Amino acid sequence: EALLAAPVELKARLSANENPFGPSSKARQAIDDSLNTCYQYPMQARDLVQQIAEYEGLKPEHILLDAGSSPLLLAAAMHFGQQGAIITGDPSYADLPRKAERFKAAIVAVPLTKDYKLDLDAMEKKVDSHTALVYICNPNNPTGTVLDSAKLKAFTKRISEKTPVFIDEAYIDYLPDPRSATLIEAVKQGQNVIVARTFSKVYGFAGLRVGYIVAQPEMIQTLSRYAQGAMSISAPAIRAAVASYQDQEFMKNVVAKTQFSKQYLYDVLKREGYEYIPSAANFVMFPLKMDGKRFVEEMGKRGVSIRNWEFGGKQWCRVSIGRMEEMEAFAAAFLQVS
Amino acid sequence: EALLAAPVELKARLSANENPFGPSSKARQAIDDSLNTCYQYPMQARDLVQQIAEYEGLKPEHILLDAGSSPLLLAAAMHFGQQGAIITGDPSYADLPRKAERFKAAIVAVPLTKDYKLDLDAMEKKVDSHTALVYICNPNNPTGTVLDSAKLKAFTKRISEKTPVFIDEAYIDYLPDPRSATLIEAVKQGQNVIVARTFSKVYGFAGLRVGYIVAQPEMIQTLSRYAQGAMSISAPAIRAAVASYQDQEFMKNVVAKTQFSKQYLYDVLKREGYEYIPSAANFVMFPLKMDGKRFVEEMGKRGVSIRNWEFGGKQWCRVSIGRMEEMEAFAAAFLQVS
Repeated sequence: EALLAAPVELKARLSANENPFGPSSKARQAIDDSLNTCYQYPMQARDLVQQIAEYEGLKPEHILLDAGSSPLLLAAAMHFGQQGAIITGDPSYADLPRKAERFKAAIVAVPLTKDYKLDLDAMEKKVDSHTALVYICNPNNPTGTVLDSAKLKAFTKRISEKTPVFIDEAYIDYLPDPRSATLIEAVKQGQNVIVARTFSKVYGFAGLRVGYIVAQPEMIQTLSRYAQGAMSISAPAIRAAVASYQDQEFMKNVVAKTQFSKQYLYDVLKREGYEYIPSAANFVMFPLKMDGKRFVEEMGKRGVSIRNWEFGGKQWCRVSIGRMEEMEAFAAAFLQVS
Repeated sequence: EALLAAPVELKARLSANENPFGPSSKARQAIDDSLNTCYQYPMQARDLVQQIAEYEGLKPEHILLDAGSSPLLLAAAMHFGQQGAIITGDPSYADLPRKAERFKAAIVAVPLTKDYKLDLDAMEKKVDSHTALVYICNPNNPTGTVLDSAKLKAFTKRISEKTPVFIDEAYIDYLPDPRSATLIEAVKQGQNVIVARTFSKVYGFAGLRVGYIVAQPEMIQTLSRYAQGAMSISAPAIRAAVASYQDQEFMKNVVAKTQFSKQYLYDVLKREGYEYIPSAANFVMFPLKMDGKRFVEEMGKRGVSIRNWEFGGKQWCRVSIGRMEEMEAFAAAFLQVS
């Protein structure tokens, strides 16, 4: 038999922008409480819809739940992908455009500005009669940059009169004031805007799969055709989401701990003579001084998983923000590899 | 403020063919064990795929997991619904045909035989150049009847040379020998057959959402475009499925307890002078002597949820098989209402 090398122990999982501080103890308790009835189909989704609707000042028919926001991105990809071109940033979260390409969509990828933000002016110029959807990830993944709120709102108001705008707000809960930054207000004003939210980040639910979109009721109806909806969410996850939604104390705590770890990472990078893109989210992108693929491999050998990108003629690394012991493991490996 | 009537206490939930004996203690333990890592995206799906592949003698590329079989029925509805007509039984499980209609599919609903089985001969005669898919639910829902295995295998072999055959085996684990009845063998032989399975029934996972299809790798690729796949399944549910899959002892126990409750139901119906369709699954259909809607309402007032159907010019009730105390609650209410 072949002698196999012992697998590397993973010390820091910093590749998927997960939140290692969650889910809250209330969510865990709710999962535990749900075990006796989890032989039943998940019927409690309406409680969660009701809670979100009340918190946001929406009607339940504005909301579509599913097992994370990903199946809803797929629904949008299927619907709009068959209708024309999708305008997105470059680089930006590629999930929706990539899925839309399966349905023959043309993708118009607009380079970021010099400060690594989505270039709204350039994106607006690309809107024409072939545009089926404009996709905005805010804060943007993988750069961690956030758009000026007033500028985004004005952009969305103008554009949504011509073509639907999809705002992916997966990381918005890491902002100091998510409620002033969200585009849910635009939906309430009747604009043709679809806002995607997820419990996978601040709520710590990446493994529990709960997300939703908010849009005009007719758009919700249209996209519902392509999605299984709330019946895809496990009953324990629905109960956990109900239990942790609006737990402001827990969320503040997650954001504060993330901020602490992020500042530590900034300091490590500065000390080693690296620049970075200041991040509004739970991940940081910085330019490498070596090949990205090799960097990922070398870090992986040291038990640290991260991701690399290439854009603007440079090699980049994206590090998710973990617990302090994970950031220290990153720092130790980075000192060896950088 | 208005005085509201106290809500009726639900004594027996017998409307959704759930399995109130599950999930197994091993599955519950696995969920508990998963809580510390459920902030991570669900990456363990490959363990479950591997387990299913080994048990069935398939390759992983023959298998597509999702959050229950429903999102996979939707994927098939989207794909085949755009291509032509779908042949199904009448009555049979309407989920796939109903979803396909959203995508403009014509539905060819073929009445059951006199003994309430899918009429394979009549279905075969309906296959023509417009047929996109033949949908077979075996055992059939809502009648609980099972097809002769040799006849179904011969049918599938012939038909699948002309058009794909989708076999929904949601209830197959209630048969005495599921492995001799499943059409997974046809997939192994290279036939153009799609077999859908779920953990929602014997495994007691209706609220946990785990299901899969088995088909030729090219068909899996095709249908993958329309489905989020394993990433929709919560990490606790994946671990629970891994823990309970192949727990033959647990499954035998569930089937035996279901059989015991079912025999009790048969006896109640006989004693009250009712006929019923002998059932191979965890539900029983019987003809009513009153309006179905009124029957459901009257039973509901007594804390028993069941479902009604109308077909063949008759009013019918479908009762899911529950725990003995639920069957006794059914019997007590039935004596009052029938």
